[in-house]
Amino acid sequence: MKALEERIRQEGQILSDTVLKVDSFLNHQVDTALALEIGKEFARLFGSAPITKVLTIEASGIQFAMATAIALGVPFIYAKKKKAITLNEQVYFAEVHSFTRQETYQVSISQKYLHASDHVLIVDDFLATGAALVGLTDIVKEAGAELAGVGCVIEKSFQEGRGLLEQRGIAVRSLARIASMAPGEVHFIEEAGAVIPPVKENVGC
Amino acid sequence: MKALEERIRQEGQILSDTVLKVDSFLNHQVDTALALEIGKEFARLFGSAPITKVLTIEASGIQFAMATAIALGVPFIYAKKKKAITLNEQVYFAEVHSFTRQETYQVSISQKYLHASDHVLIVDDFLATGAALVGLTDIVKEAGAELAGVGCVIEKSFQEGRGLLEQRGIAVRSLARIASMAPGEVHFIEEAGAVIPPVKENVGC
Repeated sequence: MKALEERIRQEGQILSDTVLKVDSFLNHQVDTALALEIGKEFARLFGSAPITKVLTIEASGIQFAMATAIALGVPFIYAKKKKAITLNEQVYFAEVHSFTRQETYQVSISQKYLHASDHVLIVDDFLATGAALVGLTDIVKEAGAELAGVGCVIEKSFQEGRGLLEQRGIAVRSLARIASMAPGEVHFIEEAGAVIPPVKENVGC
Repeated sequence: MKALEERIRQEGQILSDTVLKVDSFLNHQVDTALALEIGKEFARLFGSAPITKVLTIEASGIQFAMATAIALGVPFIYAKKKKAITLNEQVYFAEVHSFTRQETYQVSISQKYLHASDHVLIVDDFLATGAALVGLTDIVKEAGAELAGVGCVIEKSFQEGRGLLEQRGIAVRSLARIASMAPGEVHFIEEAGAVIPPVKENVGC
């Protein structure tokens, strides 16, 4: 997504060869118009699948899950990062280790909101180690729901996240794929993500 | 907002006389269409002021700040609940005590994204003790920005939050005001919030 890559070049702050800060427009202050465009692009890439719910993880995935859910006309769910005091019913959960924060936390989703009949699109702001996203895909599998794929706004392609998801047969689409970066420079993988083909029509081909 | 009150009656789970769970449509699974309507209603109530930014706090305020920002055509900011590893520049911060979780945390906003020239509308999902919202209004004041008011989706009017904000001269509008509740019943304050008058036109009146 060219507008996104351009914005990363202009406003992204590269603090090291692994840390990119985009909090002026994506995950602290949010450019609402850009977020809506991002949602439309995910809907274009995955919208052939009969998606019933968009799934993300609090907090910085929420704006992109919401934008995608608006474009698709469906509800979204955000997984909670710790067991809330009022979340006392049955939950699906997964353990996630954050390498950035050097801590392990639990992500949970109420079993009431994810069913075997759901077709789920997972959306998040960053794909790096893939730890949180693998946890979410495990939850979708445990619920018996269909996973349309994983859409990420920014992918650090030099980290292992995409590989971990693709090993599990999951379709991954990222709107800006960073091949490498260093303070003052960022290199993108120039590769348009293909539209995910309709799931139903492929049966029996 | 009648549609919201109706939804609370239908789907809200009242766990005690102070705990209301609305995670089937507001703050875990999110009804995207309803969230957009909520944003339009905040824009109607506060839109006469020349708002430049919507401000909220992660995580469950994000969907309503985004909906309001969409309706107003402005960016939004979400305050972080702990100092992030990449948030190393100057921040505004406030200490907040959560009575629900019995813990004190810090909310912070990068000084880069809130300026004296900003007109800020604060939006959140719940107004109860008002602790988090008072913290946000302190930050807006510290930044020297103009505060258009505070918009809350659900207000527990039997708690002290509204009073604390109004004592500070802040305009508060809540879309569903709960007078009292108990398992199986909820009573709303039947009072339409008036549209906030334009700030500029009032000068000198």
